[in-house]
Amino acid sequence: MSSICVDVIDIDDPADERVDDFRDLNSVDRRPDLPALPGGRVGKGLVIAEGVLVAQRMIASRFTPHAFLGVDKRLGELTDALTVPSVQGVPFYRASAEVMAEVVGFHLNRGVLGAARRPAALSVGEAIESAQTVAVLEGVNDHENIGSIFRNAAGLGVDAVLFGAGCADPLYRRCVRVSMGHALLVPFARFDDWPRGLSVLRDNDFRTISLTPGEGSKPLSETVDAPRVAFLVGAEGPGLSETVMRASDVRARIPMSRGTDSLNVATAAAIAFYERERSLTT
Amino acid sequence: MSSICVDVIDIDDPADERVDDFRDLNSVDRRPDLPALPGGRVGKGLVIAEGVLVAQRMIASRFTPHAFLGVDKRLGELTDALTVPSVQGVPFYRASAEVMAEVVGFHLNRGVLGAARRPAALSVGEAIESAQTVAVLEGVNDHENIGSIFRNAAGLGVDAVLFGAGCADPLYRRCVRVSMGHALLVPFARFDDWPRGLSVLRDNDFRTISLTPGEGSKPLSETVDAPRVAFLVGAEGPGLSETVMRASDVRARIPMSRGTDSLNVATAAAIAFYERERSLTT
Repeated sequence: MSSICVDVIDIDDPADERVDDFRDLNSVDRRPDLPALPGGRVGKGLVIAEGVLVAQRMIASRFTPHAFLGVDKRLGELTDALTVPSVQGVPFYRASAEVMAEVVGFHLNRGVLGAARRPAALSVGEAIESAQTVAVLEGVNDHENIGSIFRNAAGLGVDAVLFGAGCADPLYRRCVRVSMGHALLVPFARFDDWPRGLSVLRDNDFRTISLTPGEGSKPLSETVDAPRVAFLVGAEGPGLSETVMRASDVRARIPMSRGTDSLNVATAAAIAFYERERSLTT
Repeated sequence: MSSICVDVIDIDDPADERVDDFRDLNSVDRRPDLPALPGGRVGKGLVIAEGVLVAQRMIASRFTPHAFLGVDKRLGELTDALTVPSVQGVPFYRASAEVMAEVVGFHLNRGVLGAARRPAALSVGEAIESAQTVAVLEGVNDHENIGSIFRNAAGLGVDAVLFGAGCADPLYRRCVRVSMGHALLVPFARFDDWPRGLSVLRDNDFRTISLTPGEGSKPLSETVDAPRVAFLVGAEGPGLSETVMRASDVRARIPMSRGTDSLNVATAAAIAFYERERSLTT
């Protein structure tokens, strides 16, 4: 038996400053999960986990929470997760659902939140170090799609997610929620120099595969058999830039019915991840 | 050159009764896309298409629109689609974005709506008549997931979607929108007698494949090689009922990483559809 040393602090006043890190979660300009910019401008740069499952994953991740806010029932459900050393002494602000709704700005069904400060970002080199399969996104600016890609990556054996130009913040609250917390667990990194930074993948013997329904693409199933694979995916609509496709080793397509739209980007990525997993396991 | 005989009627008064079929689209109890029940209770039983692309697909579908409401710009974009015989004489109610927002109840970015009455439902027998691959849903009550499944079905060569117990209405507006209009184009039908009605699939030589990560399941790739295939999928969380799995010919799993959640139901279905398409094309 380990003892649990989370400090449970009851919050009765929604204006209590101790829960400021959970305040106005839906506010466009005050929400705490906006990235901080140099000079302390804009956001607090926090990461917010919602719900027991995602809070558990935050505790298990490198995004160590420094505070929780939740109702008593969820505190009970989190008990096991709260025994790990990294969260000993972290305050759990316990409130009624009503007080919590006033702090947060809306009624939060999931009943518990964790807040973490953003640790130093990984470099692309760190993120891919032991990776066999990675996803590289360009222009994917929809939080839900990014969250789904993290979830699919975790489920289908993808080791890292890399961000090129034009992508949304993977630590935005909605993204973390849709990812089921896997945005905190699957290593990710941003390319500083896009698309030239892609050379690091070639230097590390990754086969770079552009997912595109366009001319000159091979069936996906013929492309994934390499020791290290990087799938490049672009946003629905524009897709990958021609520059990026030209910089990749091969173009791959998912067989599609005629006259239909392309698939959702997270779905197309999931199919690519599946094909890769399939090639490694069969 | 065909002539266009859509009647363009300008609407200046948001209270105009002629646009009642587009009124209060987000209302819980007055929205026009609620199914009609016997005796005329509850909804109008309409189907609402949003945006130029979905309106075009509605016009091409068996859900023939009987009216449109939209801004002038979208009327222009729909011109080609409005030349087909089935919509000759159909009124296009033209309004400003402001008037339209007052009718609909919110500002509609997509700028045009089509309304159709629900034709008689297809029977399962009709929906599967010439089908080679079908999807069967049980307990999928999320409109977004159902919409995504229709989109994935259309993109990946699935010929029909069949509904068992506990599924949401595929003609709900959000579902039609997420499906990109494919909910109107891919044939679908409901089983009256669930799960016993599944026997019609066996009687028509479909191999029924339950998607499940559970014990005793085979890798998906070993299961899809049959002349006719039906994929059975359940909701995230509960999954398929044991009764349905026992009634199926084989259980199939998607290879997954350890310790992660199952995939989203629409994503899992897309992977199954892809594996099927792959087996037919390679």
